[in-house]
Amino acid sequence: MIENDTIIALATPAGVGAIAIIRLSGEKSIEIADTFFKSVKKVKSLRTQKSHTLHLGHIVNNDRVIDQVLVSIFKNPHSYTGENVVEISCHGSSFIQQEIIQLFLQNGCRMADNGEFTMRAFLNGKMDLSQAEAVADVIASNSAASHQMAIQQMRGGITNELKELRGQLLDFAALIELELDFSGEDVEFADRTKFKELVSKITFVLKRLIDSFAFGNAMKNGIPVAIIGEPNVGKSTLLNVLLNEEKAIVSDIAGTTRDAIEDEVIIDGVAFRFIDTAGIRETEDVVENIGIKKAYEKAENAQLIIFLIDSNKFSYSSDLFLEEIETIKERFPNKRLLVIANKIDTLSCHDSSILQSEIEHLILLSAKQKTGIDELRSELTSLVNTGALSNNETIVTNSRHFEALNNALIAITSVQQGIDLEISTDLFSIDIRECLRHLGNITGEYDVDKDILGHIFGNFCIGK
Amino acid sequence: MIENDTIIALATPAGVGAIAIIRLSGEKSIEIADTFFKSVKKVKSLRTQKSHTLHLGHIVNNDRVIDQVLVSIFKNPHSYTGENVVEISCHGSSFIQQEIIQLFLQNGCRMADNGEFTMRAFLNGKMDLSQAEAVADVIASNSAASHQMAIQQMRGGITNELKELRGQLLDFAALIELELDFSGEDVEFADRTKFKELVSKITFVLKRLIDSFAFGNAMKNGIPVAIIGEPNVGKSTLLNVLLNEEKAIVSDIAGTTRDAIEDEVIIDGVAFRFIDTAGIRETEDVVENIGIKKAYEKAENAQLIIFLIDSNKFSYSSDLFLEEIETIKERFPNKRLLVIANKIDTLSCHDSSILQSEIEHLILLSAKQKTGIDELRSELTSLVNTGALSNNETIVTNSRHFEALNNALIAITSVQQGIDLEISTDLFSIDIRECLRHLGNITGEYDVDKDILGHIFGNFCIGK
Repeated sequence: MIENDTIIALATPAGVGAIAIIRLSGEKSIEIADTFFKSVKKVKSLRTQKSHTLHLGHIVNNDRVIDQVLVSIFKNPHSYTGENVVEISCHGSSFIQQEIIQLFLQNGCRMADNGEFTMRAFLNGKMDLSQAEAVADVIASNSAASHQMAIQQMRGGITNELKELRGQLLDFAALIELELDFSGEDVEFADRTKFKELVSKITFVLKRLIDSFAFGNAMKNGIPVAIIGEPNVGKSTLLNVLLNEEKAIVSDIAGTTRDAIEDEVIIDGVAFRFIDTAGIRETEDVVENIGIKKAYEKAENAQLIIFLIDSNKFSYSSDLFLEEIETIKERFPNKRLLVIANKIDTLSCHDSSILQSEIEHLILLSAKQKTGIDELRSELTSLVNTGALSNNETIVTNSRHFEALNNALIAITSVQQGIDLEISTDLFSIDIRECLRHLGNITGEYDVDKDILGHIFGNFCIGK
Repeated sequence: MIENDTIIALATPAGVGAIAIIRLSGEKSIEIADTFFKSVKKVKSLRTQKSHTLHLGHIVNNDRVIDQVLVSIFKNPHSYTGENVVEISCHGSSFIQQEIIQLFLQNGCRMADNGEFTMRAFLNGKMDLSQAEAVADVIASNSAASHQMAIQQMRGGITNELKELRGQLLDFAALIELELDFSGEDVEFADRTKFKELVSKITFVLKRLIDSFAFGNAMKNGIPVAIIGEPNVGKSTLLNVLLNEEKAIVSDIAGTTRDAIEDEVIIDGVAFRFIDTAGIRETEDVVENIGIKKAYEKAENAQLIIFLIDSNKFSYSSDLFLEEIETIKERFPNKRLLVIANKIDTLSCHDSSILQSEIEHLILLSAKQKTGIDELRSELTSLVNTGALSNNETIVTNSRHFEALNNALIAITSVQQGIDLEISTDLFSIDIRECLRHLGNITGEYDVDKDILGHIFGNFCIGK
């Protein structure tokens, strides 16, 4: 399965910058690079250089100097991919990048597929599959929370959780299967008490990991928040205020830019993804209530609901507001609700007090005047239980892992039932194997299907 | 003038990629990096590592792992800047880049200014000023020609041309000034014959370099080509055909993109910049001739003129075409003219022959059918004399150098005149000094004004 050809790709973002890195991996990578590398020191061959060393020189093709470069050498197995790796640091001109890549493509290299470097790292045993998958998450991470979870996974978080339990289960599986060979003799090699303990421990860990997925997934993709409220209550103004504060923070750092994520706001390291519930009124002919019914459908997908009201309209529609709050609570008993009164700048102190006394846990703010925003931010983050994050617990964020964990749980539950019902050993030994297989899928311990690998690494960028 | 604080910047393009490089330079850079670097090997301090070595580990802040990184160490003076330099290769996530840069900014580093790494390289004597300037040109180069000229300049092209002559002139200057000290005694320390030889040699070299600028500048910025012709003759179709061919070539290489340069076409490594002469008719009420008069103004800025005619209209306006061709030739006697008949696909073979017999050196093509395009491409490149390029001659592309060379020529011409007129030595010794000063400006041999440095390096990107 492991191909030994030499692959090449641009490893840094496309575009013009001070420097760019071109990466080669494969048995012959050092040899190929050496053919076109002329050291600034008279005679120096890359082939004889030690691993983890840097060399200044030029990439030269038929006496034509393409660029002055710095070449890094990594020798098998002490490299990212586990193969010989060469990294060429050249000037960040698209033209030069092309020239160098073309030169090597014409001389024994081929263009790397998406994620092929990392796939080779996995195939060469430099990391397990869950760690390899985490590499893409690390690169894509855009908030402290998603970053922390990705880094933990890359460092073997889920692997470490499951490795020992899986090893112990494997030992028991062997003993139990041995019993089957002596089935006529009614022997028990496997200590049933210890085995029961292990099964319930595995069940416990699997449940905890499975439970972490809802949180992990939300943290990775942004916690979905629906802002509901009638038109002109200030939804977009509020969102813009939150977004602009973030943009201001980001643009403090020169040299970094960020794709515009219109409706994602990162507060204290946690990403909140605001679900667009705009245009509620448009399809309604009769205005019977505050008109948020349509928004309810969208709110189904949210974890948090912000109900935004217009302070000015409170005096003549307070009952409607209170009614709506009750309706929302009844409809979404498991979702956190935040009631916010906007346009508070237009109210007198007296009216504000009345407003606050009539609605519990009300946040008063003015999106326009930017007052009360900090309170909203801290209220939002307080609603997210980041305990698991700060305790450095393993959090599942990958749906492939989630699926495998669920399958493993089904299998181990069958084992548990088998023990409880004292059914024949040969029946639940199948379930044990099934559980082991699903656990092994997460880390890629069994031979993984090429299609699955293609799917996993196809989502990577080229050069990684 | 040399500041010793530690600067930091992202050296790779902004955005998401497999990896990103963060660069630190300054006396304390290794020390600062070491504070937050935890090697994968138990105890390893970056401070005790050799220059030009690579180290795998993590950037850790208060037990929080920010990323797994690869750190390159370069020790003063064996680095790009001549100072201690650390390059941190991290995962290409904007979030991680920010986190690492912010961490170091809070711990003794400051954000580098545009081009500050290269400015330090110049100030520390790692390269002269003309070489430093070439670094920006290398990064910006987008054609084989502009790339070759930039690389040659970066490798000291102009420096090498002038260095020896300047040294010899400096020796004569010293001898001639010594004569002034003995002015009463009528001595001649400086050999007048050899001095005359040197002066005429310097004059010759300066003139050649100055002459190269028109070519160099055109090659660097693209050779300006004006396409003139009446509306609907197929100007945009022709341009699109040329552009699309180029784009197809570029997009062959995955991982590289290129800013859309709407009107620049690279043919055989030479950039042609097409000057927009569209909308000629719009301002004219009376149509007296083919209506290209307005385009003449724009054609003033071109080096090549393409006169595009519609084959179909030839039969009833052949005299007008021939007249126009004469007018263009008379008006622009020094510009190369290419007459092209478009829409040749709609003509019969017979008519095509007549067309070709009536107009000399006519290129027949159909932009729509994409026939005759290769002939046009080879005709375009044949009009560009790339002899100087293929002979690896030094070509001046920088207008600051051009100005300095012109000033040096004025000064050396005064010296020549002084010699010819046998005027007093003290008069032309001033001119010698002046010539030396201008030559020295190119390579930055004299103390260069801080404003000039600011101007030169301000055009660089951050991180270089």
